[in-house]
Formats: sequence, structure tokens, C-alpha cells
Amino acid sequence: MALELQKDGEPLYLSVYRYYKDLILQGKLPAGSKMPSLRKCSGELHLSRTTIENAYLQLAADGFIISKAQSGYYVTGITGKPAVPQNREKAAEVNYIYDLSSSGVDRESFRFDLWQRYIKSALRQNDRLLSYGEPQGEYELRETLAQYIRERRNIHCTAEDIVVGAGVQSLLHILCPLLKDYTTVSFPTPSFVHGSAVFSDYGFDVHYRDKDCGIIFVSPAHMTKWGEIMPISRRLELIRHASHRGSLIIEDDFENEFVYLQKPTPSIYSLAGGQGVVYIGSFSRLLLPSIRISFMVLPRQLREAYLQRAALYNQTASKAEQIALCQFIRDGHLAAQTRRLRRLYAAKMKLLTEAAAQIFGAKAKIKVGSAGTTMALTVPTRYSGEALKNAAAAHGLKIQVLSESEGALTLLLSCSSMPSDDFIPALTLLKNIVTVQTLSEL
Amino acid sequence: MALELQKDGEPLYLSVYRYYKDLILQGKLPAGSKMPSLRKCSGELHLSRTTIENAYLQLAADGFIISKAQSGYYVTGITGKPAVPQNREKAAEVNYIYDLSSSGVDRESFRFDLWQRYIKSALRQNDRLLSYGEPQGEYELRETLAQYIRERRNIHCTAEDIVVGAGVQSLLHILCPLLKDYTTVSFPTPSFVHGSAVFSDYGFDVHYRDKDCGIIFVSPAHMTKWGEIMPISRRLELIRHASHRGSLIIEDDFENEFVYLQKPTPSIYSLAGGQGVVYIGSFSRLLLPSIRISFMVLPRQLREAYLQRAALYNQTASKAEQIALCQFIRDGHLAAQTRRLRRLYAAKMKLLTEAAAQIFGAKAKIKVGSAGTTMALTVPTRYSGEALKNAAAAHGLKIQVLSESEGALTLLLSCSSMPSDDFIPALTLLKNIVTVQTLSEL
Repeated sequence: MALELQKDGEPLYLSVYRYYKDLILQGKLPAGSKMPSLRKCSGELHLSRTTIENAYLQLAADGFIISKAQSGYYVTGITGKPAVPQNREKAAEVNYIYDLSSSGVDRESFRFDLWQRYIKSALRQNDRLLSYGEPQGEYELRETLAQYIRERRNIHCTAEDIVVGAGVQSLLHILCPLLKDYTTVSFPTPSFVHGSAVFSDYGFDVHYRDKDCGIIFVSPAHMTKWGEIMPISRRLELIRHASHRGSLIIEDDFENEFVYLQKPTPSIYSLAGGQGVVYIGSFSRLLLPSIRISFMVLPRQLREAYLQRAALYNQTASKAEQIALCQFIRDGHLAAQTRRLRRLYAAKMKLLTEAAAQIFGAKAKIKVGSAGTTMALTVPTRYSGEALKNAAAAHGLKIQVLSESEGALTLLLSCSSMPSDDFIPALTLLKNIVTVQTLSEL
Repeated sequence: MALELQKDGEPLYLSVYRYYKDLILQGKLPAGSKMPSLRKCSGELHLSRTTIENAYLQLAADGFIISKAQSGYYVTGITGKPAVPQNREKAAEVNYIYDLSSSGVDRESFRFDLWQRYIKSALRQNDRLLSYGEPQGEYELRETLAQYIRERRNIHCTAEDIVVGAGVQSLLHILCPLLKDYTTVSFPTPSFVHGSAVFSDYGFDVHYRDKDCGIIFVSPAHMTKWGEIMPISRRLELIRHASHRGSLIIEDDFENEFVYLQKPTPSIYSLAGGQGVVYIGSFSRLLLPSIRISFMVLPRQLREAYLQRAALYNQTASKAEQIALCQFIRDGHLAAQTRRLRRLYAAKMKLLTEAAAQIFGAKAKIKVGSAGTTMALTVPTRYSGEALKNAAAAHGLKIQVLSESEGALTLLLSCSSMPSDDFIPALTLLKNIVTVQTLSEL
């Protein structure tokens, strides 16, 4: 086995990495072939097992090989594409066995056949599809949304108050130019970059947890990543404070449908009687993340300003999907889907937290709120967040790191898209990865 | 007939308008019933025929009644909705018999069955639809677009250079924050408000036809509303000037597919070798306006800046429609549809201009470019633009006014969505409306 090592003083494992990468790209190690075992490879190359293992981990992180439990590493089929960053991520994604990080939708929960029927029916409305959509969103959909949130969130508004867009960002692009009276905006945490980036692009000063800002952006049913919700007393306090200071509240009612452990808390919009609150609703967690339809309810104070500028904006959401969603809601399927998902996720969250408690034991800390599809797990480890992510990826496990501290990492574990049967094996694998590293450090 | 007139000194015709509007809204004049003739009504109310006619025109403009040729006015079915501006527009739209203003797509040209098949196939890719889309757009679609514009517009780029979004505005929302080095932008005319509004929202100074701006936005295949295109010499001159001054060109290649009278002119992007030019392409005129998918090709200078911010933006275009479009293009249907539309619109433009020349004769002026689906018609009239629009609307005819001058109006007549058989009757009706008014002025 000929192998040039330490070219230009680069780490040994990178030379091993490049050697195998070339063999794979040249097709000399075709897709599906088994990589030599660590022991064998280490013996042949006269290198330490750690060096070989690091090379394999990097190959796996880049998607060239994949680890199969109890069996070893195998070559994947993803050769030939240029290794630019977004591709690497993409290639790697394809090969994950377990994804504890995904906020996608449970595959069993969504009735594709039903949605397909509504899309087909929408596509038969040839005449409507031949023209551009209404800038504000299809009128019938807005009427239907108004009724839906009146019944479920006690929000009293009309179709005229509702603006539809392809996701929350598209709505913020319409909203921000209406808010020239304000200069500062507060977000609960720096994590919602898709929101704060838009405000920052429009020249707003972005603060965090600063209730004295002109605009207060909150997601009251998703206060923390692990599903804590804002209690009604704090909602009322926020309304009083904002009203006193003349601030505007933007209420992103994300995941209000997934409040399990108590009755849904009233929306801030309804508590404020629609004064000084923009209400935002979405469907990505209820239907499919790939359906890009969100909506906002404008308070009286912004309606006139919007109307004057409404003609400046094209509608971004697909007209066919708007028509389909409208009829889907009218026929009661959204309500049924919400009930189904709430039941499903409540059960899955219980299973996931139980599995985590059982597998990680007393040394780990678990945080769960009363909503959402995600828990936080703090484990003692010497890994950095990035290193644990890479090590997990090499074993086909995708994880999300929330925070790092001395000797511990906090991970976010999502139950939504993973089948419950995978919780135990996925968490066992995670435990093993964390433990091996912890042992090797001793 | 009891009728309160001149309440608070309002014009008589508005009292008549309100009287009938109330009768209609209360259901006392149900949908389909015939309105009294102008003569009869004028006799009964002891008011001039002009007053009655103005009231009827307003009722028609608001969608409460509609004029049927040789027969009189009839009550429409659109009662009960609040009369806010966007609804009025909407209600009125429903009742147009002829629409000379629409830039929609010819109903016969689009193969709905074919598109439905591709959407259905996309909707069967359950697993892909369960996750959020790539922020930059589906990779396969970007690859396919790169190949498509390489073959057709001589644009050499890779999938990595392409960003997909739900319409041009969505792309500008991503682009503007990357252009902090510039402060001024030039548009060809004030008419593309959907573009200039975005730049203005981001704090750019918007100029018109000012080649010394930092950013030059051009639609070279759509220089005027009536389809003039930018000759190659001016494209080269623009590139030289921009390169000399360090300006950025944004090339919206809108309607480059509809250049009939000559070979398509090379894109500015290709002439500049991709240096200092952002290329924008769309499908709303080729497929369906309701499909919201556009894309931009970033020049090298902006690629790095985009990559650093790419994760901040969610994709706005429907994932199912992206998957469908990708396969639709790969199977050659977009190219076939483009050929079909170019033939169709070339024939329709010829018919429309001939019909206009024949009906309006020597007193009217016609302007037609070598591309697009719209001609400009200047007719002598004493109508204001708004008054002619209202009068035409009252006869079920929708028109678009480009400009007004002393004793003349310039209208934009679009051939795209109207069947060719309607050209003669629609233009005859338009001629009659213009003539009646001109006569009554004598």
C-alpha cells in the first residue's frame, strides 16, 4: 500500500483521508464496498488506530463513507460532485440513519393522498391559474383563515386584515417598510435569525429580551427551544407595558397547536383586542414544511398603511396551494390534522423523554416544556459541540447542539420526524459515542 | 319612487348610485334583474339622463350592475361584501367581458393536463416534501436551470451561482442586503414599482434612466411597454460604462422569449462574461402567472457575500412546484412551450395591430416593438384616462391607460390572454365608447 504522508506538514489523518477520497472518486473503491477495519488499516499503514479513525470520521462527515452498526464503514454512492460547502452538507444529509435534529413532520402523520386530491382539484381551476394571484392572498383563503382563527384563537378580524405570504420572512418583508416609526426591535433570543436578519436588513437595531424596544417580537408558544410557553400573566404584562410605551407586538403563534400539558393559552392578539399586535400564523409544522404559506393579521393602526402599499407587492405563495389549503380547511381537514398531530407528538415526546432518562441516567439533565416537539438534554462530555456533531455524523446520527459549557453539552432532541421505534437505538448510539470519548479521555 | 337627493350637497348622481346600491344590497333588486332604462329612470326621477348614466357607470364600476350590449344594465350577484377598495376591483374583474389589459396567459396555450402530471409526480415524492427546501432552491432545479440558460442564453454558470425564489421581488429581498456598497439604483421607467419599491424600502435612492447610478436595473427585452428591445450596441455600451464606473447591472431578462421580429439578442450577462451582472429569469409568462418561481444568477463578486448570508433566508418558492418544473424542463416541455407561445403571440400581435389599424383608422397612432404581447394605441378623445376606464368598465371592457395628453389617450392593448376572435368586437366596442363621448362633446 503506497501512501504519501505528511505532505507539507499536514496532519497524518488528512493524508489518509485524501488517499481514500481519491480511491473513491476514481471509482477504485466503488459504492457499497466495505472499508478495511480500523485494526487492519492501522496495521498495514503503521499508523495509530486514532489516526485511521479520524480519517474515517472525516470521510464520513463528508459523505464518502458511512458507518453501519456492528459492521464497519462502507463507501456511499455520492461521488463526482464538486465538494462545495452546501453540497457537502447535502451529501451528508442523504446518509444519516437517525435524525434527532429535524423539525420535519412525522411521515406517518400526513395524509399525502388527501393533500394530493386537494392540489389536483385546485389545478383543475384552469381559469384562476391563468392570472396572477391577488397581492394580499386569495380572497377565499383569507376569509377561511379569518374564520379559522376566530374559532380557535379567538381572533376577530376580516379577510381584509389578513395578508398571505410564502413563509414568515415574506410577511416581514411587507411589514418592515410599514414600521418606519420604529427603530428598535427585540427578539427573545438570537436564534431566530430568519426574523432578526430581515429587521436588521431594513436598518432596525436588533436587541434581545429588551422590552423597551419599539417592536417586540415574541413566539409565546415557543419561548424556549424545548417548548416552554409564555404564561397568561406575562402575556398581559407584556400588553400593558407595550401599550404604555406605544410599542408594537409581533406575535408569531408558532406551535401554539402543540401545547399538550394544558389548555392552549389565549393569543396575545386576542388578549389585546387586536390593538397594537400583529398576529402571525404558519402551516409548516401542521402540513408539510415544503408548503410555503403563512399569514399575518394586521392591527387597525397598520391597515391603512398596508393598503396604500399593497399594490407594490406581488404575492409569493403558490396560488394552487392557496386554493387547495382553503378547501382543505373548509372541509375540516386542518382541524383534524392538528388533533392528530397533537396526540401523536404528545405521545412521542413522552416516549423520547422516558428513553433519554432511561439511557442517560442520573448524570444527564432533561428539560421539557409544555409544548413543541423538542427536549433539551445536557450530558457531561469533553467533546466540543462541533466534535460531537462530527463524531455522531460519522455514525450516521444527526444531532443539534444548543449550547456548550465546561465539561458538558446541551443537545436538542426532536421527536417530530423520527419514528418512535428509533428513539432507543438512536439514543443508545448517542450514549455510546459520548461514552467512548469520555473514556478515551481518562 | 321616493328618493332623497343632494344630502349634504353631494352630487345628484351619487344619491342615485346609493339608492340603487341599497336596493341591491337589501336584495330588493335581485341578481339578474334588469335595471330601468336610462330614459325611463330619467323620466321618473325628473333628472337628466347624464345624471342617471353617471350613477349607472359608478354602479357598474363597483360591480353591482353590468351592461349587456343592445340590452341594458343587469344586477350582478356580488352583494353583501364590504366595499373596500381591493374588493371593488375584484368584484368588477369578475364581470368583464373583454380584457384588453391582462398580461395573463392564453388559455389555449397552456397544457394543463401536462403540468398536472408533473405536479402529481412531484407530490408523490413524499420524503422530499416532509422537509424544508434548500434555502437556495432545490439543487436539481438549479442544475437544470444552469444548463437551460447555457443552451439558450449563452450564460455559463453552475447550480452554485443560482438562487431560486418566489418571484423577482423575493430575489431582490435577498439581493439588496448584499449591495451595501451602493446607494443609488436606476430603473428604466417609474412603472416597475414592484422592483423600485424594494430598493426604496432598503434605503436606496431610486433614479430613472440615470446611467451614473451604482446599480442599473434593466429589462433589455422589455424596454417599453409595447415591446421595444435594447439593441446589442446599447447593451455593449452599457456594459462598458458600468464596468468603467464600477456599477452593477441587474438584467431582468423578462420576455426575452417573445422576441419575434429578429433573432434573440444576446443577454447582457453573456456579453459581459458574467462580470458585474446579476441575471434574473422568470416563468410567469411562459407557464402560468400563478406559478411563483424566478431565479437569479449571481456574478462572482457577489457569490461569497451570498453564501455567508444564505442560511438567513428561507426558500419562498413551493418545493413541489420546483420539483415539477425541474422535470418539466428536463423533458423538453419548457422549450416546446416557449416555441409554441412565440408562434402564437407573434400571430396574435399581428392580428391585434391589424384590427386596431382597421377599426381606429388614420386618426389613431399605433406603436409596436419587436417583442412582447402588448401594443400602444393613441386615440384622440376628451376623456380623462380614469373616465374612459370607467366608461369602458361599464360596458364590460377592461383597458389599461399608459399616458394622457391634451385631447388624446394612449392605451396599452395586450393580446396575450384574450382569444383572437374577440379582438374585433372588443376594439369595436372600445371605438364606440370613445366615439360616443367625442360626439357628445361636440
